[in-house]
Amino acid sequence: MIKSRGYAAHSGDQPLQPFEFERRSPGEGDVQIDILYCGVCHSDLHTARNEWGNTLFPSVPGHEIVGRVSAVGSGVDRFKVGDLVGVGCMIDSCQHCSPCAEGLEQYCDNGFTGTYNGHAFGGRENTYGGYADNIVVRQEFVLRISHTENLAAVAPLLCAGITTYSPLRHWSVGPGQNVGVVGLGGLGHMGIKIARAMGAKVVLITTSPGKREDALRLGAHEVIISSDPQQMAAAANSLDFILNTVAAPHDLNALLSLLRRDGTMTLVGAPAEPHPSPDVFHLLFKRRKLAGSLIGGIAETQEMLDFCAEHNIVSDIEMIPIQQINEAYERMLKGDVRYRFVIDMGSLNG
Amino acid sequence: MIKSRGYAAHSGDQPLQPFEFERRSPGEGDVQIDILYCGVCHSDLHTARNEWGNTLFPSVPGHEIVGRVSAVGSGVDRFKVGDLVGVGCMIDSCQHCSPCAEGLEQYCDNGFTGTYNGHAFGGRENTYGGYADNIVVRQEFVLRISHTENLAAVAPLLCAGITTYSPLRHWSVGPGQNVGVVGLGGLGHMGIKIARAMGAKVVLITTSPGKREDALRLGAHEVIISSDPQQMAAAANSLDFILNTVAAPHDLNALLSLLRRDGTMTLVGAPAEPHPSPDVFHLLFKRRKLAGSLIGGIAETQEMLDFCAEHNIVSDIEMIPIQQINEAYERMLKGDVRYRFVIDMGSLNG
Ligand SMILES: [Zn+2]
Ligand SMILES: [Zn+2]
Ligand SMILES: [Zn+2]
Ligand SMILES: [Zn+2]
Repeated sequence: MIKSRGYAAHSGDQPLQPFEFERRSPGEGDVQIDILYCGVCHSDLHTARNEWGNTLFPSVPGHEIVGRVSAVGSGVDRFKVGDLVGVGCMIDSCQHCSPCAEGLEQYCDNGFTGTYNGHAFGGRENTYGGYADNIVVRQEFVLRISHTENLAAVAPLLCAGITTYSPLRHWSVGPGQNVGVVGLGGLGHMGIKIARAMGAKVVLITTSPGKREDALRLGAHEVIISSDPQQMAAAANSLDFILNTVAAPHDLNALLSLLRRDGTMTLVGAPAEPHPSPDVFHLLFKRRKLAGSLIGGIAETQEMLDFCAEHNIVSDIEMIPIQQINEAYERMLKGDVRYRFVIDMGSLNG
Repeated sequence: MIKSRGYAAHSGDQPLQPFEFERRSPGEGDVQIDILYCGVCHSDLHTARNEWGNTLFPSVPGHEIVGRVSAVGSGVDRFKVGDLVGVGCMIDSCQHCSPCAEGLEQYCDNGFTGTYNGHAFGGRENTYGGYADNIVVRQEFVLRISHTENLAAVAPLLCAGITTYSPLRHWSVGPGQNVGVVGLGGLGHMGIKIARAMGAKVVLITTSPGKREDALRLGAHEVIISSDPQQMAAAANSLDFILNTVAAPHDLNALLSLLRRDGTMTLVGAPAEPHPSPDVFHLLFKRRKLAGSLIGGIAETQEMLDFCAEHNIVSDIEMIPIQQINEAYERMLKGDVRYRFVIDMGSLNG
């Protein structure tokens, strides 16, 4: 076993606090990583506070990990000590089902192992995530980072980046298409950057007029304020694809009406309470589709990282020491972050 | 003008009764048709009773029309007197928008003209449907019937047939696929027959154990009783595509869970009240899609009629004289019809 230090929640109603624990020593196919940075995802907060009712405590959140390889098992051929690497939402899957064979580990028929809280449904031991000084992961779930600077801002690509890249790629977003991105938060701001880099015309749809400037700076060509019926009516039937990043329950009909015939709106956020039920007429009369998408596969995550390095895409972040994580959660709840907190893991020694 | 006799509702709360009216004489591009049979669709009832609040009275329903050409305009080159023809849900569209150019008149950007109640939203005069002895339609919206017998049973193909054929074709149903059909009514029984003829393995999903025998006779390979949690659990993640024909509000989650990864459930019925809101997790975790589909285009309707003639597909019907239309409506509301009423228009002289 190796020693780890990090931050953990010990119950849903307690703040995160320093936590010392052990991880397995790297086995034959494992990579041990010294964590440099870890992004702060809304799922971290939901899990730490047991809002989905399935948290195994103590819980060490964090699945937007960037670090450097510090040791490798004897069978590791893809990485060597000193390599810059990333770890996202998954650290294992069955590797023999049909989705796994297709590189879609996120849809593993036997359930992937989450980077944290990994066996909540599986009855096996808990997994501890990236709010820590190190992690041990089998090499198949380790990603190569080719960005050479701004590494803290690369961390959010591992969840927010792939969660938006995967549906944009799956639904073949590209030049000549009008793509809507709903919501300008951690996911939405990545969605704008990536869709723009893919060559689409990008339209941000937001309830907040104050986000207009930022959206344009991030790469959006247009901004629609969804609370303005005139703007919404003017944009009816204009979008080929909508990436909807808003997890709070909201009116899907108004957004579906922006889609062209045969267009798709894909949800990447899961609300705690269901959205108001979408009106079937909005689906029928233009043969529209409402879909969902979950993170992305490992090969696709590598593709996304390479794409973002090539296009100089990183996240807009606010760096924090780990001692401020509980305060950061409170600010996230208020939407007070542009656009992702990233923990500087060096602060563990502070 | 030419004289027509039929049945009409004069208000939403009155039964249909005999009605004499006039239609335009066939113009240059028009076909005049003596109606032999007209199927009875749920939309007829909704419109006659003004349940969608948009009915223009008097209302002559009927859009599953089979008849014989009795006159043609001087510019008609596709049909001649004596031809056996059909008319479905549409009798006109703008003919110059992009959907019209693609043969998708049902999605016409300027709104197609319904065979009855056609200008409910357009401010122009009403259109009168197929519960009548004749109809006049521009030739582009007239279909050729190549079935040589059982013509009454061909009539429901013009709405129930195309409404199920179009999504099955659009989502590329065929050999090697498992296709679910939800609900065994007028639409569902056509869905079973057509999906079977397309080469798919067909699974009927119904709340009624009593429909099992009929479903197998109609061509289903399997029947799942949706109220049985064990049967539903056993079929989880097994279907490539689901054609959902049930218009009454119902639990979509249980059905979505039957879909494989990347599967689509397409709704062809529009409930008066929304379905309970589908759980986003069911979409996210298998990248599933919920879609809608509306009737089908004119060229596709011709393709469907030819396909059904080739595969000896007609509807299972119960023939009625037009004098029994109000009683038939009451029986439809109770689901007491296997599986479509068709009016013998000869009864107008009875
Ligand atoms: Zn995340
Ligand atoms: Zn697997
Ligand atoms: Zn109909
Ligand atoms: Zn048109």
